[in-house]
Amino acid sequence: MKNITIIKGNIAYTKTLEKFEIHEDSFIVAKDGKIEGIYADIPSKYRSFEIEDYGDRIIIPGFVDLHVHAAQYMQSGIGMTRQLLEWLNDYTYNLERKFQDEEFAEMAYEAFADKLLSVGTLRSCIFASSSTKGTQILFEALRKKGLGAYVGKVNMDTNAPGFIIESTKNSIEGTKQLIEMYKGEGLVKPIITPRFAPTSTKGLLKELGDLAVKYGIPVQSHVNENREEMEWVREIFPDNKSYIDVYDSNSLFGQTPTVMAHAIYLEEEEIEYMREKGVFIAHCPDSNINVRSGIMPLRKYIDRGLKIGLGSDVAGGHKIGMNEAIVRAVQLSKILNIMDKSYRPVEFSEAFYIGTKGGGEFFGNTGSFEDGYSLDALVIEDEKAIAQNYSILDRLEKFIYTGDDRNICARYVEGVKIG
Amino acid sequence: MKNITIIKGNIAYTKTLEKFEIHEDSFIVAKDGKIEGIYADIPSKYRSFEIEDYGDRIIIPGFVDLHVHAAQYMQSGIGMTRQLLEWLNDYTYNLERKFQDEEFAEMAYEAFADKLLSVGTLRSCIFASSSTKGTQILFEALRKKGLGAYVGKVNMDTNAPGFIIESTKNSIEGTKQLIEMYKGEGLVKPIITPRFAPTSTKGLLKELGDLAVKYGIPVQSHVNENREEMEWVREIFPDNKSYIDVYDSNSLFGQTPTVMAHAIYLEEEEIEYMREKGVFIAHCPDSNINVRSGIMPLRKYIDRGLKIGLGSDVAGGHKIGMNEAIVRAVQLSKILNIMDKSYRPVEFSEAFYIGTKGGGEFFGNTGSFEDGYSLDALVIEDEKAIAQNYSILDRLEKFIYTGDDRNICARYVEGVKIG
Repeated sequence: MKNITIIKGNIAYTKTLEKFEIHEDSFIVAKDGKIEGIYADIPSKYRSFEIEDYGDRIIIPGFVDLHVHAAQYMQSGIGMTRQLLEWLNDYTYNLERKFQDEEFAEMAYEAFADKLLSVGTLRSCIFASSSTKGTQILFEALRKKGLGAYVGKVNMDTNAPGFIIESTKNSIEGTKQLIEMYKGEGLVKPIITPRFAPTSTKGLLKELGDLAVKYGIPVQSHVNENREEMEWVREIFPDNKSYIDVYDSNSLFGQTPTVMAHAIYLEEEEIEYMREKGVFIAHCPDSNINVRSGIMPLRKYIDRGLKIGLGSDVAGGHKIGMNEAIVRAVQLSKILNIMDKSYRPVEFSEAFYIGTKGGGEFFGNTGSFEDGYSLDALVIEDEKAIAQNYSILDRLEKFIYTGDDRNICARYVEGVKIG
Repeated sequence: MKNITIIKGNIAYTKTLEKFEIHEDSFIVAKDGKIEGIYADIPSKYRSFEIEDYGDRIIIPGFVDLHVHAAQYMQSGIGMTRQLLEWLNDYTYNLERKFQDEEFAEMAYEAFADKLLSVGTLRSCIFASSSTKGTQILFEALRKKGLGAYVGKVNMDTNAPGFIIESTKNSIEGTKQLIEMYKGEGLVKPIITPRFAPTSTKGLLKELGDLAVKYGIPVQSHVNENREEMEWVREIFPDNKSYIDVYDSNSLFGQTPTVMAHAIYLEEEEIEYMREKGVFIAHCPDSNINVRSGIMPLRKYIDRGLKIGLGSDVAGGHKIGMNEAIVRAVQLSKILNIMDKSYRPVEFSEAFYIGTKGGGEFFGNTGSFEDGYSLDALVIEDEKAIAQNYSILDRLEKFIYTGDDRNICARYVEGVKIG
């Protein structure tokens, strides 16, 4: 047997939304990066392998960020009281433009990849910028760290400043080029990424959908984020029956694995359609508030069986650590409960689930410690006084609510220690 | 001239709610801890004094936390999906009880004081526990760090577990003892602290009010936090016309400087009465959500001219850094705006103001860099790539939204560098 990883500690994860599975002082064994089992005592056949013993520390699945703009990372927390369009024009587009400069892209994406690693986001769905070369630099930065990700060159050929859009032809060619380069077996893979419907011509959407289907490449974009945006989409695409239909009619909505950010406002039939097509929602709670889009009804979507993960949505969201997104998801659901007592707030286990296994499913079997899942793990170290006085679940909750990268002392992706 | 402090950098503060005062690359001069002026060039009479030059870093007023439970710090972020009473009984009271043990109190309060210092909370209004000796240990821990604070032994003689309440006599005697010890000139001073009306007998409230008036000692407590609590107060004190009146009729509401936490639900005449009496509100946004109390209408209270500061309310709030409270105050006001477009969200400058000068006024002239104010300052260091690409105000916003104690490289209280 080769490539056996064994780590030991207090193991905590969510197999279901309802509760944590806790294995105190136990061993996780993985073979070629896939989990074989969790054991209270190490089985004899594994006794000859090296064991990384994390003592009283807590081992949890790595965090998954289903929606993050790498090219906006530098401006996270800036311009937060601007309105969306003013924020895009005064800050975001100008920043994204800089990624045409390779030196800038290398500096900024290196910082971004470092940060993802430090905060324990081991898998993510990432928007780069419209620069093909810049996007390639991001692929390389993430690969070097050993992180798992889907990375998309941002496609936009209309309705944005000239310095940030491309011709339809260049946008498609750059995308195809990156697909050819990275469609192999690595942990960092391409994803088709129309910014959102309004910055795409019909022609661009059609060709992107064709690429997705031809290569079997997943898709990410934004949908139904705010009322003004939805109205704009209706104006631009009068022949489509809905925002969703703009994507769907172009093979960009579940024809290949698809994740849509926000989806704050969904009609009943849209909820049902997303469920049928297995399209993931990236719930981005901080961004929901910061840009005043509205509050996505998480409890309702959970109850309706939608596939949901969490997104930091940096830089609409300001915090890149997914523990913060877990907390804010609970907080927003509590606010909906304050407004309407019949709305049941989400539990800590539910928010943790969507921040790990919920989003992790977009990458296959990741985000949990069940047999056959990828061993993507974080080792959490807390203060002695806390560890001595509280249960493992209390300690984990405290880390999620108050901890940061300093509490993460080891990170594993597919059984390999990467930091 | 003695005791001159001169620090140099990019100076930012809020004299008014509406906007930041920015002095790039300037000098703050303080004499005996009070600010003499801000200068672009150093006046000749100060040329012989030492200048601490912080280069391109940003210098802001220290943060002020108007409501924090030191004895609950250890459990911040734990039990966050519990209901209030369950949380008190399962976690909080059991933890507070431990502060009767001097060794435990020393360990826990040392960690608390360390944390306050690290996150730049230079002034705070603190609830300790009901233990007199434990509270004395907290006074000493804060004094050693050079922090400014009002510290209250928590008075409670009814309606809580026997192991945490005291007899009225012991509660008063312990309070008097601490007042006698600490009423002098130090930076850490006593404050009268009935936990809240329901855990106080009428006799206790009356004697506490008498102590406050006799010694000229300020007062802190909780008021109108949630509907159930308000109903409970009505039941326990049927002779008082309101929750506020329970305090007011016992000289605990503005007879000496008073700060009340929460005040989420205020009738029109109560707003007016608080304004008249100059009673401060400690707005605790994270706690508002975490324990599902409701959302305090910050914009409305600002417009009505109430005195408002921010509180972390650790451990109802989970984050002790006041930058987080500033962000959440903006976010909650945006949520009220999402619900009702006529509600104007608070601006970044307004939230920063209440987190510095707004609360700072409870301590006299602190929380701003105007002439005559105490030089309570934090020096903020950000990444070179941010400093090179953004304005001072953008950089400050980024620190508030995404930064932590690692970005604070120096701390001054009354002109003395304490960390």
